Amino acid sequence: MKLPWQERPQKCKDVVWRYTENPIVERDAIPTSNSIFNSAVVPFENGYAGVFRCDNKAVQMNIFAGFSKDGIHWDINHQPINFKAGDIDKVHGDYKYDPRVVFIEDRYWITWCEGHNGPTIGVGYTFDFKVFFQCENAFLPFNRNGVLFPEKINGKYAMMSRPSDNGHTPFGDIYLSYSPDMKYWGEHRHIMSPTPFKDSAWQCTKIGAGSVPFLTDEGWLMFYHGVITTCSGFRYAMGSAILDKENPNMVKYRTQPYLLTPSELYEQVGDVPNVIFPCATLQDIKADKVAIYYGAADTVVALAFGYISEILEFTKQNTL
Amino acid sequence: MKLPWQERPQKCKDVVWRYTENPIVERDAIPTSNSIFNSAVVPFENGYAGVFRCDNKAVQMNIFAGFSKDGIHWDINHQPINFKAGDIDKVHGDYKYDPRVVFIEDRYWITWCEGHNGPTIGVGYTFDFKVFFQCENAFLPFNRNGVLFPEKINGKYAMMSRPSDNGHTPFGDIYLSYSPDMKYWGEHRHIMSPTPFKDSAWQCTKIGAGSVPFLTDEGWLMFYHGVITTCSGFRYAMGSAILDKENPNMVKYRTQPYLLTPSELYEQVGDVPNVIFPCATLQDIKADKVAIYYGAADTVVALAFGYISEILEFTKQNTL
Amino acid sequence: MKLPWQERPQKCKDVVWRYTENPIVERDAIPTSNSIFNSAVVPFENGYAGVFRCDNKAVQMNIFAGFSKDGIHWDINHQPINFKAGDIDKVHGDYKYDPRVVFIEDRYWITWCEGHNGPTIGVGYTFDFKVFFQCENAFLPFNRNGVLFPEKINGKYAMMSRPSDNGHTPFGDIYLSYSPDMKYWGEHRHIMSPTPFKDSAWQCTKIGAGSVPFLTDEGWLMFYHGVITTCSGFRYAMGSAILDKENPNMVKYRTQPYLLTPSELYEQVGDVPNVIFPCATLQDIKADKVAIYYGAADTVVALAFGYISEILEFTKQNTL
Amino acid sequence: MKLPWQERPQKCKDVVWRYTENPIVERDAIPTSNSIFNSAVVPFENGYAGVFRCDNKAVQMNIFAGFSKDGIHWDINHQPINFKAGDIDKVHGDYKYDPRVVFIEDRYWITWCEGHNGPTIGVGYTFDFKVFFQCENAFLPFNRNGVLFPEKINGKYAMMSRPSDNGHTPFGDIYLSYSPDMKYWGEHRHIMSPTPFKDSAWQCTKIGAGSVPFLTDEGWLMFYHGVITTCSGFRYAMGSAILDKENPNMVKYRTQPYLLTPSELYEQVGDVPNVIFPCATLQDIKADKVAIYYGAADTVVALAFGYISEILEFTKQNTL
Amino acid sequence: MKLPWQERPQKCKDVVWRYTENPIVERDAIPTSNSIFNSAVVPFENGYAGVFRCDNKAVQMNIFAGFSKDGIHWDINHQPINFKAGDIDKVHGDYKYDPRVVFIEDRYWITWCEGHNGPTIGVGYTFDFKVFFQCENAFLPFNRNGVLFPEKINGKYAMMSRPSDNGHTPFGDIYLSYSPDMKYWGEHRHIMSPTPFKDSAWQCTKIGAGSVPFLTDEGWLMFYHGVITTCSGFRYAMGSAILDKENPNMVKYRTQPYLLTPSELYEQVGDVPNVIFPCATLQDIKADKVAIYYGAADTVVALAFGYISEILEFTKQNTL
Amino acid sequence: MKLPWQERPQKCKDVVWRYTENPIVERDAIPTSNSIFNSAVVPFENGYAGVFRCDNKAVQMNIFAGFSKDGIHWDINHQPINFKAGDIDKVHGDYKYDPRVVFIEDRYWITWCEGHNGPTIGVGYTFDFKVFFQCENAFLPFNRNGVLFPEKINGKYAMMSRPSDNGHTPFGDIYLSYSPDMKYWGEHRHIMSPTPFKDSAWQCTKIGAGSVPFLTDEGWLMFYHGVITTCSGFRYAMGSAILDKENPNMVKYRTQPYLLTPSELYEQVGDVPNVIFPCATLQDIKADKVAIYYGAADTVVALAFGYISEILEFTKQNTL
Repeated sequence: MKLPWQERPQKCKDVVWRYTENPIVERDAIPTSNSIFNSAVVPFENGYAGVFRCDNKAVQMNIFAGFSKDGIHWDINHQPINFKAGDIDKVHGDYKYDPRVVFIEDRYWITWCEGHNGPTIGVGYTFDFKVFFQCENAFLPFNRNGVLFPEKINGKYAMMSRPSDNGHTPFGDIYLSYSPDMKYWGEHRHIMSPTPFKDSAWQCTKIGAGSVPFLTDEGWLMFYHGVITTCSGFRYAMGSAILDKENPNMVKYRTQPYLLTPSELYEQVGDVPNVIFPCATLQDIKADKVAIYYGAADTVVALAFGYISEILEFTKQNTL
Repeated sequence: MKLPWQERPQKCKDVVWRYTENPIVERDAIPTSNSIFNSAVVPFENGYAGVFRCDNKAVQMNIFAGFSKDGIHWDINHQPINFKAGDIDKVHGDYKYDPRVVFIEDRYWITWCEGHNGPTIGVGYTFDFKVFFQCENAFLPFNRNGVLFPEKINGKYAMMSRPSDNGHTPFGDIYLSYSPDMKYWGEHRHIMSPTPFKDSAWQCTKIGAGSVPFLTDEGWLMFYHGVITTCSGFRYAMGSAILDKENPNMVKYRTQPYLLTPSELYEQVGDVPNVIFPCATLQDIKADKVAIYYGAADTVVALAFGYISEILEFTKQNTL
Repeated sequence: MKLPWQERPQKCKDVVWRYTENPIVERDAIPTSNSIFNSAVVPFENGYAGVFRCDNKAVQMNIFAGFSKDGIHWDINHQPINFKAGDIDKVHGDYKYDPRVVFIEDRYWITWCEGHNGPTIGVGYTFDFKVFFQCENAFLPFNRNGVLFPEKINGKYAMMSRPSDNGHTPFGDIYLSYSPDMKYWGEHRHIMSPTPFKDSAWQCTKIGAGSVPFLTDEGWLMFYHGVITTCSGFRYAMGSAILDKENPNMVKYRTQPYLLTPSELYEQVGDVPNVIFPCATLQDIKADKVAIYYGAADTVVALAFGYISEILEFTKQNTL
Repeated sequence: MKLPWQERPQKCKDVVWRYTENPIVERDAIPTSNSIFNSAVVPFENGYAGVFRCDNKAVQMNIFAGFSKDGIHWDINHQPINFKAGDIDKVHGDYKYDPRVVFIEDRYWITWCEGHNGPTIGVGYTFDFKVFFQCENAFLPFNRNGVLFPEKINGKYAMMSRPSDNGHTPFGDIYLSYSPDMKYWGEHRHIMSPTPFKDSAWQCTKIGAGSVPFLTDEGWLMFYHGVITTCSGFRYAMGSAILDKENPNMVKYRTQPYLLTPSELYEQVGDVPNVIFPCATLQDIKADKVAIYYGAADTVVALAFGYISEILEFTKQNTL
Repeated sequence: MKLPWQERPQKCKDVVWRYTENPIVERDAIPTSNSIFNSAVVPFENGYAGVFRCDNKAVQMNIFAGFSKDGIHWDINHQPINFKAGDIDKVHGDYKYDPRVVFIEDRYWITWCEGHNGPTIGVGYTFDFKVFFQCENAFLPFNRNGVLFPEKINGKYAMMSRPSDNGHTPFGDIYLSYSPDMKYWGEHRHIMSPTPFKDSAWQCTKIGAGSVPFLTDEGWLMFYHGVITTCSGFRYAMGSAILDKENPNMVKYRTQPYLLTPSELYEQVGDVPNVIFPCATLQDIKADKVAIYYGAADTVVALAFGYISEILEFTKQNTL
Repeated sequence: MKLPWQERPQKCKDVVWRYTENPIVERDAIPTSNSIFNSAVVPFENGYAGVFRCDNKAVQMNIFAGFSKDGIHWDINHQPINFKAGDIDKVHGDYKYDPRVVFIEDRYWITWCEGHNGPTIGVGYTFDFKVFFQCENAFLPFNRNGVLFPEKINGKYAMMSRPSDNGHTPFGDIYLSYSPDMKYWGEHRHIMSPTPFKDSAWQCTKIGAGSVPFLTDEGWLMFYHGVITTCSGFRYAMGSAILDKENPNMVKYRTQPYLLTPSELYEQVGDVPNVIFPCATLQDIKADKVAIYYGAADTVVALAFGYISEILEFTKQNTL
């Protein structure tokens, strides 16, 4: 298993740079798909597994398992994940989208946006990416961008989320909640707000947790998306935040500038123009490298790279 | 302790009728209040205790304890409830409003709308209406109208709530959630929706749980509010619903017609015109009587009466 | 049959004045009604018949026949009108409201707002106010305020209407359309617009035909409603217009000032505050008298009076 | 006269595919045009004639005649169509756009969106594409997407349309209306609705008739547009529907997936990004081929192809 | 000349109390008026003069001079003020409303909301309330609530205003601007904002200067209006602010609670329900008394009283 | 100093044409920039100087000085302009954007959109593009697009501006104001409105002054932007207007068609798609040439050219 990686282009001075062969997953990578984006990956066996948001040609949203040797070339199942009942009586959801995946203790937990009379946070798990179990939704609607921590915090599961409304939510803060058992949730804490327009306009409308945080010397490093409202609708860009290791309710640093903003054609043009939406990372802490997976223009999956130490330093130096 | 009561006026044919001396609590019943409304009462010692929403003259919202011998004449404390920390580290809320009160097992539980970067459901308790303890909020924002069941359901606390947005929410369904410990919540189920306009227009914009349900032969009887959007804003009226005794996720009956709609001047004119908002009942099951407390025009507290058996029958006969 | 009438109060200098015993129909005049308003009357046999909008306590809208000896005291049927199929295969409508009635040639034609996947203009007739027949809707949705002329114009039926949207329409002009057979309609002409705010603000948001026009020396006299948008929603007032006798597409005169605006409590307070909505007149041309029926606050029916010659003169002198 | 045609590309598995030389009409194809799109064609003499929407550089909308030998290369008149009065007194319209053309009996009928104090359905005809006659508008405003059937149904002209509001209408259903004489219209029936978001999101905001239906073994085959509301505004895609031959009020099949969605740069980028808007077809029933003309990005005209039998099969197999 | 005055009612503990004979000017006080409200008064000769907003029955807004011996009973001219050109070429305005009046040096200056392609601040003067001169508008649209200081500040005229938009502005702060000559304005300073909802909800949507400030020991005392957005629209209440004597850009104190909120029927019911809008005061500094004139429900003029020292003390004690 | 220039391409028939090497300033022309657009240039010493809007990667807006030999290749300072206090006590602004520059009498005046609790018009000057002085804001918020005339008109400075609201203003007219001293402003006159949709749709939502006017035989020639609201938001195009030489309050001619509309990829795709926003010209009156600088897609700076005489003729021939 080798981390997907490409060195920084010579002329580039940015702390995060794009893969030159982007997008890595095209909108029609499976026969039924209208678009594939906002997807999550995780090391699995000798390579990688992923959970992909594939909207079909009726623009129904669902999540699909996929596999890759190198994290770049993916084989995505042609059928959506068929969940069995986990800790819930029966499984039903109007739709599923924007998955995240994380390994905790003994299994791979998946969270996503689940349609339950409006969007909320669906929860499921798998041991093998073949059989999947769906559990109770974590929260009441309306919610999006549920992202678990990769280990328990003080003995409890911890999940970030972004309370929303039932449409194209024009507001949005990140909260952190806890659960003793992944079934009942509480101890909700507000941890991150959109910024005042004059301080950092790219994240002034709403923000949402993106990738599963991973532990660094500085604390939990997470990539998140921020949104600005232009006269043509929303524009989504990506920043980074560092949360305290012991008490992740405390955000230690958070980038005032973005790390990536839509500026390539595959990010600027598509089903929804001007969207960069990070959902996962792969990292090699020793090698100091991170690969960031993000949805582009609500149409394709793209990849970016960076050195972890540089990103940490940048986040600290450019904190709000 | 005598249930507040007044017989149905001779000419009245309605299943629920108003107290002729309404409002029972005036907007200036305490020196600092702008308005007193959407308040809850409960039998206590030899009379009644209540938790009252008193907005002050800065129109800051807070909740106050009050006491009454007869359920009609109330002495409301001049200082808001000062919560001590219950199962939470420290107590802080931007505001508190629309309380409900219910006795479960050994104490009086209070739920209300708590400001935590937006409205959500606050939870607290008291043994004596002198010392109060605040616990963890039940849910993430945005939520309103959290109403507990008066006993555990299958060993778990049960609470209805109405997921909302951060403004004058123009939508709203009732959900039911469960908790083993009043701290962590899950098993969220959607139980009641607004109605299609043509079926029952008074409750077509949004609905919210109102009074604490009480057990009858038909199941849990609850009074709730429904809202219609007129060209002058929202109008709030009151209906009733009967939930299954064993599985309150199942709504057995629910009134297509309202039981009360704003038609008295104190309901039609005030800080917010045309509002009837039930928050509590007192009932004498044996005597077949119920007294319903409701906020009127977001300004005062009013009282209505009915025979439980008649209301049950009406709800069944006029169900949606 | 005597025209309902009351002389102008001594102090009153207005060209139209209210009946002192208003409202003439209370909101609970029939057992099931939430409100009775926006209703139409017509001479019938030795007295008067009417078609009344009675919203029931589920706030479902329907129309009911009623009868009166004096035009003031009304007996309204407790059951809504049950239409048989006229020139249409089968009768179905989601709701019916805001009726108008007019006698043409051999029968009483009724028009109203009919729910057909949105509001449009329903058409029906009766010979006796006992048996009613429903015909094809005149127009596609979305439309409201369909008002027929009491005789054919150049051999064709003529109907005013107010194209709308599917909500609380924030715009609205009056059009006039023609039909050879009351089934197929065409020759649509735009005849009246809302006014610029600075010219006549009470009718600057939208206008709608009100009463069935009747012929005078100056042309067709009609009372219509105009709407202004305040920071508390819409306010409805009443004006008059005179349309050319030969070519009613031509509006000859139209009042810049209103004739009636909400200023009595029953017009200012109710289910929708600040509404005056004229739907019918009774007139005695010889006696120079007209009685105007209008809905007040979307809750009750009220009555106003005037001398036709004075109203004509006022309309000409105060025309836009 | 040869049907424009290009075989399906080898790798393509879609039931409808694009012409590789798209767009076939550029935005500046005539000297005065800002954009040319949403246009209609019909077989004429030894080739084809068309009616084109050409917005000029003041972005005034008007319709222009054009001619082609092969249906692909078009000569569009530099002057807009100058209508003479048909069955109407005098011709006036604020603007004209989105034309459709169909031959019925003895002449070519044209329908379009006509400005008459708001958009409604204009109607006109020509025998030779040189002299044009304008008739009465079919309906009251606000309406768009009026599409005639190519023959009378039960002795009457039949027209689909999409009642609208006076702006960027955020709703929209398809109705079917009838006329004995192309002047007076009635018998309006609701035939197609937008879909629930979870069933087929690309057509969940509004839909509108597109091409003139043509008769197949399965019934009338029509291509229509469906719209989804993204956080950047509307996105328009194309589906197909099959209406019952005898009673086209009955929609027999309708595609849950789209047939075409914006995914080429000329569809994704332009005056209005992400628009595919079908307005006409040419078909060779014997050869089983259909050529579909559609506006792209409100800027240019493009062409797509398909086998009729495949489209019918696809529509039946993938029906909602 | 005697200050209008009535002692505080016995039971009343408020710092400001209403005149028991309110409203002092009825909506029909002149023959043409629909409503008279938001008006200003000033000592003049042996009594008082005023400038009154009288909307006529076409709901056109204009300002009228009026006179009173006692400040309570008013004779209002039946014709609006007819301005001659002051420092401006010619006088034209689409409408005039919400006047304020103040004597500075040698004349009475009047400011009001002037229609100049949208609302802005009109300026005029009179020496005798018979002949009036209109000057250049102070500012560009959109602006409302222009209120002059009664003397020059550091040699320059000083005016508060409330930048607005062209509708029912949902935001609004108070600015202070300066002019050497009452013709050219600059040195604009932001001085007061709406409050956060949780701090003082009655003034959380927008605020606007009300009465002309007068000098006290504590500084300039001004009554202003604050607005909250309810689910039925705006509600207007009144507070007080004290500005620094030397540098009125500095707000020293400002009431967190309101001084008056709509709670009498003439304030709660009318053309716009729930409005208290102060526009002027009369004060007797020696006698420590102030009379406050305010518009009620956009329909009538009402009067309230208070002791200046008490109001100062209250403002200081209850400052934000 | 040579005017930047490129001859009209052979096939082009437009009166204004683009530079083939557009954009001339890329979004990342300085290390910190997210985008560089809506910028102004002026002849300076032996070449040109400019003031550039460079949004940084936090999307904070500020203005930067830049220099060029040829007007095409620019060196932009890496630090924003650091203003010293001019006629104002101290300098503070929340943000600065959309600058214009003009030489009057003895110095270069700069106007821009200044954040002062909302956007308004900032004013400053420099003699050398090294030291800059900031003066009092010209107007109250909310305002944008302040453009000075290059000489005094009747002894007074003259500035166009576009009163706005505090968001993505959906309306907007151009006013002209005067000042004796560049500090106090008055004599505000409304000079240009958006057009009715049917007359010139590209400028029907709002308009704003663009480049500094320059004097021609026909009067002051100015390039301005006009905006249309599509279902995907705003689209910005460019027109020209000629103002009377003596009395620039009088607009003599104004183009009904646009001169430039977004049709190149760098205008159609970017941070805000479909924007052409002119902010400056360089002209050689003798040579009859003008170079127009405009922001494209809120991302880059582009350049267009034209012959002044042709533009004048076009504006006269195609006037509204």
